[in-house]
Amino acid sequence: MAGSSFGTIFKLSTFGESHGPAIGGVIDGVPANIPLSLEAIQDELARRKPGQSSIVTQRMESDLVQILSGVFEGKTTGTSIGFIIPNEDQKSKDYSHIKDAFRPSHADYTYEKKYGIRDYRGGGRSSARETACRVVAGAIAKQILETKGIDIVAYVDQVGSIKIESEIDFNEIDNNPVRCASKKDAKRMESLIKKIKKAGDTIGGSIRCEINHLPPGLGEPVFDKLHAELGKAMLSINAVKGFEYGSGFDCITMKGSEHNDVFLSDGSTATNYSGGIQGGISNGMPVTMRIAFKPVATIIQSQKTIDVEGNEVLIDGKGRHDPCVVPRAVPIVEAMAAITILDFFLRNEAVKF
Amino acid sequence: MAGSSFGTIFKLSTFGESHGPAIGGVIDGVPANIPLSLEAIQDELARRKPGQSSIVTQRMESDLVQILSGVFEGKTTGTSIGFIIPNEDQKSKDYSHIKDAFRPSHADYTYEKKYGIRDYRGGGRSSARETACRVVAGAIAKQILETKGIDIVAYVDQVGSIKIESEIDFNEIDNNPVRCASKKDAKRMESLIKKIKKAGDTIGGSIRCEINHLPPGLGEPVFDKLHAELGKAMLSINAVKGFEYGSGFDCITMKGSEHNDVFLSDGSTATNYSGGIQGGISNGMPVTMRIAFKPVATIIQSQKTIDVEGNEVLIDGKGRHDPCVVPRAVPIVEAMAAITILDFFLRNEAVKF
Amino acid sequence: MAGSSFGTIFKLSTFGESHGPAIGGVIDGVPANIPLSLEAIQDELARRKPGQSSIVTQRMESDLVQILSGVFEGKTTGTSIGFIIPNEDQKSKDYSHIKDAFRPSHADYTYEKKYGIRDYRGGGRSSARETACRVVAGAIAKQILETKGIDIVAYVDQVGSIKIESEIDFNEIDNNPVRCASKKDAKRMESLIKKIKKAGDTIGGSIRCEINHLPPGLGEPVFDKLHAELGKAMLSINAVKGFEYGSGFDCITMKGSEHNDVFLSDGSTATNYSGGIQGGISNGMPVTMRIAFKPVATIIQSQKTIDVEGNEVLIDGKGRHDPCVVPRAVPIVEAMAAITILDFFLRNEAVKF
Amino acid sequence: MAGSSFGTIFKLSTFGESHGPAIGGVIDGVPANIPLSLEAIQDELARRKPGQSSIVTQRMESDLVQILSGVFEGKTTGTSIGFIIPNEDQKSKDYSHIKDAFRPSHADYTYEKKYGIRDYRGGGRSSARETACRVVAGAIAKQILETKGIDIVAYVDQVGSIKIESEIDFNEIDNNPVRCASKKDAKRMESLIKKIKKAGDTIGGSIRCEINHLPPGLGEPVFDKLHAELGKAMLSINAVKGFEYGSGFDCITMKGSEHNDVFLSDGSTATNYSGGIQGGISNGMPVTMRIAFKPVATIIQSQKTIDVEGNEVLIDGKGRHDPCVVPRAVPIVEAMAAITILDFFLRNEAVKF
Repeated sequence: MAGSSFGTIFKLSTFGESHGPAIGGVIDGVPANIPLSLEAIQDELARRKPGQSSIVTQRMESDLVQILSGVFEGKTTGTSIGFIIPNEDQKSKDYSHIKDAFRPSHADYTYEKKYGIRDYRGGGRSSARETACRVVAGAIAKQILETKGIDIVAYVDQVGSIKIESEIDFNEIDNNPVRCASKKDAKRMESLIKKIKKAGDTIGGSIRCEINHLPPGLGEPVFDKLHAELGKAMLSINAVKGFEYGSGFDCITMKGSEHNDVFLSDGSTATNYSGGIQGGISNGMPVTMRIAFKPVATIIQSQKTIDVEGNEVLIDGKGRHDPCVVPRAVPIVEAMAAITILDFFLRNEAVKF
Repeated sequence: MAGSSFGTIFKLSTFGESHGPAIGGVIDGVPANIPLSLEAIQDELARRKPGQSSIVTQRMESDLVQILSGVFEGKTTGTSIGFIIPNEDQKSKDYSHIKDAFRPSHADYTYEKKYGIRDYRGGGRSSARETACRVVAGAIAKQILETKGIDIVAYVDQVGSIKIESEIDFNEIDNNPVRCASKKDAKRMESLIKKIKKAGDTIGGSIRCEINHLPPGLGEPVFDKLHAELGKAMLSINAVKGFEYGSGFDCITMKGSEHNDVFLSDGSTATNYSGGIQGGISNGMPVTMRIAFKPVATIIQSQKTIDVEGNEVLIDGKGRHDPCVVPRAVPIVEAMAAITILDFFLRNEAVKF
Repeated sequence: MAGSSFGTIFKLSTFGESHGPAIGGVIDGVPANIPLSLEAIQDELARRKPGQSSIVTQRMESDLVQILSGVFEGKTTGTSIGFIIPNEDQKSKDYSHIKDAFRPSHADYTYEKKYGIRDYRGGGRSSARETACRVVAGAIAKQILETKGIDIVAYVDQVGSIKIESEIDFNEIDNNPVRCASKKDAKRMESLIKKIKKAGDTIGGSIRCEINHLPPGLGEPVFDKLHAELGKAMLSINAVKGFEYGSGFDCITMKGSEHNDVFLSDGSTATNYSGGIQGGISNGMPVTMRIAFKPVATIIQSQKTIDVEGNEVLIDGKGRHDPCVVPRAVPIVEAMAAITILDFFLRNEAVKF
Repeated sequence: MAGSSFGTIFKLSTFGESHGPAIGGVIDGVPANIPLSLEAIQDELARRKPGQSSIVTQRMESDLVQILSGVFEGKTTGTSIGFIIPNEDQKSKDYSHIKDAFRPSHADYTYEKKYGIRDYRGGGRSSARETACRVVAGAIAKQILETKGIDIVAYVDQVGSIKIESEIDFNEIDNNPVRCASKKDAKRMESLIKKIKKAGDTIGGSIRCEINHLPPGLGEPVFDKLHAELGKAMLSINAVKGFEYGSGFDCITMKGSEHNDVFLSDGSTATNYSGGIQGGISNGMPVTMRIAFKPVATIIQSQKTIDVEGNEVLIDGKGRHDPCVVPRAVPIVEAMAAITILDFFLRNEAVKF
């Protein structure tokens, strides 16, 4: 209800502000008796971590997660998993300049209007720091899905107007700081991000995500369609402005006779404009989607804005920030996909009695 | 959990197959003591109704809704509203040809795989007939939101490759069968749809939706962001393939220095790339979004497909269908927006104690 | 949230006032492909029906349920089941005397205070007529549970101060109008009810319920313990004032050394003070509980009360009512037990992956 | 779904095993801008703490709570409150004897059957240690309710067969180790508990709880009646076997003409058999209830039981435990009442628009 929970059976509830002592959460509905690698969780956090390369924010956080419950002798027990990630780099003085002013296109103004109070330090609850908790839950979901052979992969396919053009190679994704699935295009994207950073500006980008080896039958009719929940999952990530799956917005100009995916005798389809989902339920083909991220609102330039009394003020761009959010958003997209898919797997268990 | 409910406080639960005796639902969490016009509900249903013009399906349904509870002497009582809409045009024989075959890009295959059984007549539960129930709940939500001055409007802005180009005029929307907000562009779109229909084919399209006079503060942090729930709401509508709000996918190529919405002294912003939402919470500017609809899968052409045993079969295109879904989808988009917004209004009541 | 839904996966949402055109509901999360007997549903409604014997209310309702969706060719399809039960005996003039006055120990006053409006005819939403919808959902749940061998039985064990004293015989329950599990005690209870009725008064009673052949493992830790949900289920039935399971209130005076249920080698226990539940989870022994029902508030005697302006007024006892609610409450108790247990069965499916 | 959450708007999700590094939780839906005393939270924990007197378990835990988010400069921010309570006294070797054996009337057997794995140390998730998290959330809810003048008080009214007989004096409750509302009866109860303890045995008891100054209108119709949720809240506490409100089980022998609560001109009632609730909604009178607690299952006596292979084994009674649970359960009952009532307060905000 108040927005800090996601999922129905496999359910993540999170807490934490950017500059409090810690962030963390509770994961309920974890299936029992599944071996869990804490290292694998930490590895995913490392992919999201600030300071990992020269094209991301230089804020330093070791992002060490502590699992406090729900795991016994290396296996899930079926009871809720509690975890925390201490905040280390809490330079609160950095934020005194925004105590009384609203940064443009941040959530300062809307939180103030909603609650009448806000923890202004680093954006408080609206900070993308919150997404680390999603990565923890996602890394757990991923390990559970792997026992069913499900495979989730995301990569940057556009930064500014530079699109991925070379052949897709999943093995390249973690070999370059952009997390692009093409070595060549990654270079071009990296150059653009560095140029933008130098100018004290930021730039948008997009991420593709693919879920492979999903069995048919996942997703629920009417309101909880598989792509509707995936859409919500992705749109809930900071800075996301759009979501499409399968043919996406390109479907607008297509005819039914082109767009229909003809079934082959094994139940697969000749094309996949449906993006692996028909009537909101998976059909066994790869689930494909694309997510648009806006340019980060924090820029190293002076901007006009207003203070809490409505007076016009100038706000200086300081602080450490990402010139482009997509390289660090890749593991977050994968995490939200994993959480959503595992939840639908568990929901589907109740269909046949 | 099983997909037939939407909303948290203002909550719609629906039932009904295309060819059963009736569809209907229960709406819980309706605020008490609000005058309700049944005529206004029926008017919204008329906008979604089949057979309303020559460019939509000719299936005949009078779509008369019966309100069974929750309204007393013309006012809501605060208790749940039950309603049904009888199905009249149930030509079940029309569908015998798809009893054993899976229509391409329909939900026949996925329902069969999920449940091991399906009501094949007219798509059963996966039929867009279900959306009439959303329109009923939406028409109620709209009337309640009107008491707060909230105004929701949607219109077709693209059919195939024909985009809206003339000036937007909301008054034109219900003056043309396409529900385009420009008389001139509506004509061009109508011609295209007629041409497509004649060819026994279908075409995609898109709808814009705007929510005006929304106060700041609606939406919840983290997972239940205003645009995340709006996205889920829209993506749950049959045939939707993509959702964007504010700058949407265009944000990918923008810089932060361009994209940031500068605050004016009254709290409004000079531009509205944020689409009225910052950090998942409304900021008082118009909430703007765009939704992509695929071409309808039913076409009047023979298509190759498989039957339940995996044999290749030819399936004939018959039945009455929409050559383009967007004209009838306009009231559905408005309904889902109204339901979502009213729910957030009610959720927000609990924030200040 | 607004109170008209029960359950998590197997979920019932209801609507309807005593004197509206119909009551009904939506049942979502019904497992697919299970044969359903509509006759069996109607039979359960007959057990709850007014007018079934001389010791219950003489209001006449045929209580014919219409299933509108979710069942195809005699089997559940896995999609939501919608149903309505038309109200036939709507003598609204009977209730003009309570339009402006609050009947003692009814919900007139509290609904007025909560909503500022109420459908005063027959108690509106607060009428026990609503429980017919529970019986429909319960009858469906029962049939599904029968496929797993689960057996639910309830009976009257006390009316006023007359307790069941003879040996329990489940076969007797539906052979007497009291629904007592002993022929001899049923007679004594029936006499008491008749005497009370003649005096224009009402009397309390209690019901025992037993669930047999339940496998171990149902119920969830911490807040959603099996007995906590059963308790909520029972306490939500009109007129219920108390709930206990296993040893119940008698446990207060017992010692641990007496109360502990010693395990036998087959996993069963020598005694069953635990009532089949340990730590909120079923242990395979019979689940036993007892529910207390207050005397019906409608009596055929003049009572002092106040009107909406706070003036003291006399209210006449008229209308048809039950002198003792327990005979008709037996199928309602069984229904709520069935709904709760089936829901826990389905929830438990997600535990092992 | 998996049982670790309670509430709808004001919602507590908990985690933690008896012998893990910490227990804790997330509280979402906390109203914004309310001053919060951390000392008051710690004080409530002290009332539940082991080792507080000679008649409770001597396990030592300082139970220091750390609030990690959602509070800024002493006030709630409206965002989720995360908290942890480190476990200090983790003598895991104490529990090696129950690794393979099932303690009678504990949850060892049922957890094993449900999950196929269990953290056997100290009962793991089924340990009453979990209730400390309820007390934290309850202490927060209490402070918020105090701003509305709501007052919640609980006290022991029976231990074994010793009932409270003297006049009730709320001021006495925290003056004696039993938490009885009468000095004189407290002495008698204390003696009994000491005697029972000396015998290595345990004894049951009961607690009364009263909620005062509640406005009319709280509670929802049909399934989420005020007393149904209170019942679930109380029944979810470890060791509870029964719940009643108002007249409770005594209503069975009463007539309607006695039981009806006559309204006085100010809307109050002459008697309060209804326990402050009519039709599931508060009527402004004190809400009264009584909760039965079984004798603790851990006793200092050898007991026969079975091991995981079904072999009969003897289990020694060791470990530190409570001879009677009710003195420490008083703050837990108050906490669950506070959480439930605050949630209904917030739910009620959405009724009038």
